[in-house]
Amino acid sequence: MPELRKDPVLGRWIIIAQERGKRPTDFIIEKSESKGGFCPLCPGNEKTTPAEVLRYGGGAPNTPGWDLRVVPNKYPALVIEGELDKEGEGLYDKMNGIGAHEVIIETPNHNETFISLEPERMINVFLAYRDRLVDLGKDPRFQYVMIFKNYGRAAGASLEHSHSQLVALPIQPRMIVSELAGSLSYFRYKERCVFCDIVRQEINQDVRVVCRNDYFLSITPYAPRSPFEMWILPRSHSSSYIEQDDESFRALTAIFSESMLRLEKCIPNVPYNFVLHTSPLRSAPLEHYHWHFEIMPKLTQIAGFEWGSGFYINPTPPEDAARYLREQDI
Amino acid sequence: MPELRKDPVLGRWIIIAQERGKRPTDFIIEKSESKGGFCPLCPGNEKTTPAEVLRYGGGAPNTPGWDLRVVPNKYPALVIEGELDKEGEGLYDKMNGIGAHEVIIETPNHNETFISLEPERMINVFLAYRDRLVDLGKDPRFQYVMIFKNYGRAAGASLEHSHSQLVALPIQPRMIVSELAGSLSYFRYKERCVFCDIVRQEINQDVRVVCRNDYFLSITPYAPRSPFEMWILPRSHSSSYIEQDDESFRALTAIFSESMLRLEKCIPNVPYNFVLHTSPLRSAPLEHYHWHFEIMPKLTQIAGFEWGSGFYINPTPPEDAARYLREQDI
Repeated sequence: MPELRKDPVLGRWIIIAQERGKRPTDFIIEKSESKGGFCPLCPGNEKTTPAEVLRYGGGAPNTPGWDLRVVPNKYPALVIEGELDKEGEGLYDKMNGIGAHEVIIETPNHNETFISLEPERMINVFLAYRDRLVDLGKDPRFQYVMIFKNYGRAAGASLEHSHSQLVALPIQPRMIVSELAGSLSYFRYKERCVFCDIVRQEINQDVRVVCRNDYFLSITPYAPRSPFEMWILPRSHSSSYIEQDDESFRALTAIFSESMLRLEKCIPNVPYNFVLHTSPLRSAPLEHYHWHFEIMPKLTQIAGFEWGSGFYINPTPPEDAARYLREQDI
Repeated sequence: MPELRKDPVLGRWIIIAQERGKRPTDFIIEKSESKGGFCPLCPGNEKTTPAEVLRYGGGAPNTPGWDLRVVPNKYPALVIEGELDKEGEGLYDKMNGIGAHEVIIETPNHNETFISLEPERMINVFLAYRDRLVDLGKDPRFQYVMIFKNYGRAAGASLEHSHSQLVALPIQPRMIVSELAGSLSYFRYKERCVFCDIVRQEINQDVRVVCRNDYFLSITPYAPRSPFEMWILPRSHSSSYIEQDDESFRALTAIFSESMLRLEKCIPNVPYNFVLHTSPLRSAPLEHYHWHFEIMPKLTQIAGFEWGSGFYINPTPPEDAARYLREQDI
């Protein structure tokens, strides 16, 4: 059983995923994975993954014919079965590692990348995120669902076939706690949502805008951790990803696709991560919080300074990055 | 001039080091650096670095004969000249990138690593940290000095010759702000230092202790971000690194050396970062804060999940790591 443990100084939770337990010598070879060969995410290999929890497209469950599948991770960081059991150990706090860890298989086609997906495939991905958020939100043990994508070895992807992941957590992760607290303190002072103010200022200044449409804005944020970091925000206030209507999902697909295409044109085959930031499960609509995606190209090595300080050195001003991104011919 | 910018939601400061400005195409080749060749940190090449700000050993300034040298970084993330100039830009906050960025050259011998340093050389490194903290603390523009070491390309090192770095900052980095806040709230509740409680509990439980001596304790922390993460803490309460006496520096050298040797035996030539966490410059002694080193082997890829959540998945329980480390024959 994995375990959740809390740092007593910072309040930061970590997962000890002992099932993945490694002896020191296991770390030495952990370098590259060969391309090609057997792919458990390809059609025809449905039986090699745990049974699907969501499926779009035709065919019988766990057989070919799907357009998109969501399956539990075969090597989960957290496990779905069991009661939440919180416990102290002297001054330390822990709980057993209850949660869900799922894989969103974005396309049956092994050779497509997320960026190359047709709009009707990409919208499926965003709809699947919503459907899983709604479904996992019914489980009272979970407080948050973190949805993210790793593309490229350098960004942590271990499978080539295009996929994203989600982790349902019995706690609120530190980053969300900090965003909620920061945006609340702004709201208390200004009586406005800080993200709405960002949207307004970015549209007015128009120096960090990558692209926009009626529903969404894509920007390089003012204080980016890494070169070409991008955020995609709804232009109207909304604290939860699941509040969107159909039109909005189409607009999200369009802006996400354009942003990623511009990035790919700037830096071909760039490794990247993106993460959905949304309000906690079952939270009432929040006046001070605003859901968004953060997209982080993996271009600089995180070194000692960043580790120790939470303080990032970025060689590319976001205004330059936005200009490069806008200049691309797509 | 580099710029410091603050994320308006999280309060996280980042450095835009525009002098290092890169076009998108510059990122594509940033892969490996050849070994061997010219080393600017070697004796005889003193003129290729900026003039030294600290020197231990014999010889004239900026000539061979030294045991340890500290020089400004030739490509600094922050610059030392100028007034601090804080400014708003709509809802955003920035200041010009005033600070110091220095390189501690730990040995004249190109082929020594930090772990292989003789005790009399390693103690110089720890004394140099103190001397630079004291000296930079005289500059009222600076609030914090972050001292860190990157070893190995995977951990962000770009030069082979053994060295550490420091960055003097006009702000308090987020990690320190969080540690100060977390330890203060513990202190208010318990009227004890949380780190002192950690030291006490770890010695009693004796399952995460790597090694110890009369002055220091080396542990794998209860909630480690990465496998084989280690913390080295003074056993008696002390909030500032510069408070140490000579005997204590000898003991620090001994425990640091033993901890790193055990790590190196476990995982030969492991890339790692370490960072000194100490109270802010010119802070009065703090009852609730306790200086320490955090040592992070670079064994797992930081992927989307960690980025987005500040939430880490660690495959190795610290109790297992401590056992492996203790079992090594050194």
